Amino acid sequence: MNPAGIGAATVRGDLGEHEERQLAWAYLSRVVLGPCPALTALIDSVGVCEAARAVRERALPPVLRTVTERRRELDTAARDLETIRTRGGRLVTPDDAEWPAWRMLGLAQLTPGRDPDGALPLVFWVRGHRNLSELTEHALAVVGARCSTGYGDRVAGEITGELAARGWTIVSGAAFGIDGTAHRAALTVGGATIAVMACGADRAYPTQHERLIARIAETGLVISEYPPGTFARKHHFLARNRLIAALADGVLVVEAGMRSGARNTVKWARRIGRPALAVPGSVESAASAGCHRMIRDGEAVLVTGTAEVLAETAPSRLPLSTGSKSSEVDRPGGPEARILAALPATGGRWPHDISAMTGLEAAEVRAALVALDMSGAAARGEAGWFRLDRAGEGGE
Amino acid sequence: MNPAGIGAATVRGDLGEHEERQLAWAYLSRVVLGPCPALTALIDSVGVCEAARAVRERALPPVLRTVTERRRELDTAARDLETIRTRGGRLVTPDDAEWPAWRMLGLAQLTPGRDPDGALPLVFWVRGHRNLSELTEHALAVVGARCSTGYGDRVAGEITGELAARGWTIVSGAAFGIDGTAHRAALTVGGATIAVMACGADRAYPTQHERLIARIAETGLVISEYPPGTFARKHHFLARNRLIAALADGVLVVEAGMRSGARNTVKWARRIGRPALAVPGSVESAASAGCHRMIRDGEAVLVTGTAEVLAETAPSRLPLSTGSKSSEVDRPGGPEARILAALPATGGRWPHDISAMTGLEAAEVRAALVALDMSGAAARGEAGWFRLDRAGEGGE
Repeated sequence: MNPAGIGAATVRGDLGEHEERQLAWAYLSRVVLGPCPALTALIDSVGVCEAARAVRERALPPVLRTVTERRRELDTAARDLETIRTRGGRLVTPDDAEWPAWRMLGLAQLTPGRDPDGALPLVFWVRGHRNLSELTEHALAVVGARCSTGYGDRVAGEITGELAARGWTIVSGAAFGIDGTAHRAALTVGGATIAVMACGADRAYPTQHERLIARIAETGLVISEYPPGTFARKHHFLARNRLIAALADGVLVVEAGMRSGARNTVKWARRIGRPALAVPGSVESAASAGCHRMIRDGEAVLVTGTAEVLAETAPSRLPLSTGSKSSEVDRPGGPEARILAALPATGGRWPHDISAMTGLEAAEVRAALVALDMSGAAARGEAGWFRLDRAGEGGE
Repeated sequence: MNPAGIGAATVRGDLGEHEERQLAWAYLSRVVLGPCPALTALIDSVGVCEAARAVRERALPPVLRTVTERRRELDTAARDLETIRTRGGRLVTPDDAEWPAWRMLGLAQLTPGRDPDGALPLVFWVRGHRNLSELTEHALAVVGARCSTGYGDRVAGEITGELAARGWTIVSGAAFGIDGTAHRAALTVGGATIAVMACGADRAYPTQHERLIARIAETGLVISEYPPGTFARKHHFLARNRLIAALADGVLVVEAGMRSGARNTVKWARRIGRPALAVPGSVESAASAGCHRMIRDGEAVLVTGTAEVLAETAPSRLPLSTGSKSSEVDRPGGPEARILAALPATGGRWPHDISAMTGLEAAEVRAALVALDMSGAAARGEAGWFRLDRAGEGGE
């Protein structure tokens, strides 16, 4: 194969600058197959087209020559771009407006020498119609055990569904177990979800999730830093985890065995300054052992439900309840004050009944209850919601 | 009634000094019915006999006159001492060698003005033959929900039984639920347990636990700072909780509702510098909500089993495993090294099988596994114990 593709095209002069750059990015993505700090540094310094030419002509420092040697003659850029296009996708590069630049800041601030595997992604191969940058504006990563239990699936489904319904994008890895549950819960409520793949964005891994992944691409995004056709390899999963952490406001782990990959995602979250949250469970369940270990070791904060996830992840990013300000609780006649007045101090009352008592919509009641929970004014017990009077400790 | 009891006895000269002082302590215990910092200060300054005389003769500063006025003429000291003796008990005072002075240091260091309810106990009315000071040398307080679940009872029973079998004394409050389970588990393994009562030590509260409390007195201790016959009152429970915390090396909470009294015991533990531990559970269980809240708020450390309780409570107080030093893991041929060699890296193996493979006693295997767990060399999963290789993060 004559590795002249881009250079020749430029000479022909029939390519726009954008297309030329796209070809250069695609070519380099195929050559390095994943993150490559040395190449990113070269692109930063000479531009992507010049970098592609240097790689092709081996006009490189030794370290880059080594990592590019094996595939530098393999210029499938045009074909790769065509492949992703036929799958309803595109190549998103740092040239594009939708490149999630601010999401990548955490990775950008890591020291390449000290964190070679924490490198910035070169590009994102993307399937789906949504804008990657917009879709990750309010996002939560939800990951966990592949061998999840019914408990984990229920909790992941509930929290994920509630957040997705509130406009949060759910980012996960399309794996069996908690990942799949999180994507499905987001889809069920008509919310947005992003699957970050360890294989090419045109492939399905695990293959049993082919339909799920196709559904995600329909309303959300399926993305990968690997070019089309790439098979999932073991080290891809670890690299992929850094992107899951980087693309979200926080990482929630619902069930994780003692040696779960979720812990790796949490490690990334902490390295790039994102909150890491974990749901506790029975100490008799091996599927919760990793969560407990992370909470115990201070790697993750214990959360028991949506309100606490919101409190930890972005306390001031989204309004706490529809159409109300946080001072609502103190304003007589506001929905939260009315709901608070309808709550018993002992026992409990369910949203349906509160709605009937106050004449407020059920959705408004639920949103206000979350805000009241977060502000410590109310809590949910076995018998429903109750008012919390902070004066005494009470009881035995 | 002529309030001349002790004074008259002293005049008669037929009482030894010890008995005279016992009568003075007993008299004052009845007068104040619980902790009284002002009285403790007076005793410290003039001695217990002089303090008793001053109370009886109203030769007191106004604050003490007020709190002693109501019962100062009620001298039932001799009868109270007789009552506790007929129940196989005695009065333990700061005069006695078995007074747990070092256990009371935490309370002694609180500022009486700022922590009026954190006062030192005047005395302990005690049922049982064991020495109070010796019995609290290695002690864990185990408290929790009165409405415990099967899960909570299993976990409390397992941890408590294992610690009691290792020689730890279990301190609790004889209440329904976790308290009762903890006492019973200690008794079952032939271990020591102490019930700290909110009523007189001669009474049973709750009455349904009369047999349990009697069994505790047979092999352990039933103690109270209230004189015989005292009924349990609401404020006694809160005051009693400080003694549960003070008498142990740490407080373990197994299940607690959002407004559980266990949180009050944890508050005391923290104020007097004892570790507070809590067992997580399902976020769907109201009985674990208080534990989660305490872990989340940093009031208690998450623990999942005996090894972690030991690690948090007294890492260097007791040998980690029977007959082995902590360097055993590294010593080839030592029991822990042999057990480690018998553990699989994936899956798991149960103590019974490890015992068969290594030729070690089951008890020795279990003790060594705890040590290996604590040192991070092994962990228990759903399929049994496995070896932990700390090199890689592994997996997805």
